[in-house]
Amino acid sequence: MDIVKVFGDNLKKYRTAMGISQEAFADKCGMHRTYISAIECYRRSISLENIQRIADALEIETYKLFLEENE
Amino acid sequence: MDIVKVFGDNLKKYRTAMGISQEAFADKCGMHRTYISAIECYRRSISLENIQRIADALEIETYKLFLEENE
Repeated sequence: MDIVKVFGDNLKKYRTAMGISQEAFADKCGMHRTYISAIECYRRSISLENIQRIADALEIETYKLFLEENE
Repeated sequence: MDIVKVFGDNLKKYRTAMGISQEAFADKCGMHRTYISAIECYRRSISLENIQRIADALEIETYKLFLEENE
């Protein structure tokens, strides 16, 4: 499993399901738009704490960010 | 959810279930024993790539490292 890709795809999936832009989502988690964009484009790994901030802002359980499309 | 605590507890749970020491597990993932010890004692956050290396070495799906005890 390519975790950076799975995480980036899941972030984009849940963010777009919320119907908000990268900028609005970045504000919601107190991060910068370019950071969110880089994660969604697999250009950025992130730490456990930021994983938790993103899951909280997406209002989902953290483990869902690690499920592959077919899981 | 305290992600650093949940991750550390899950790492210890799955590692001890495999019946191997922190040292042997560290060797298995190509990391240092003190790094594994620090994660299990909540003293260390880690990156996505290292999360994947640990899940692979534990031979479990990555998302299981993010499930709380009652999930």
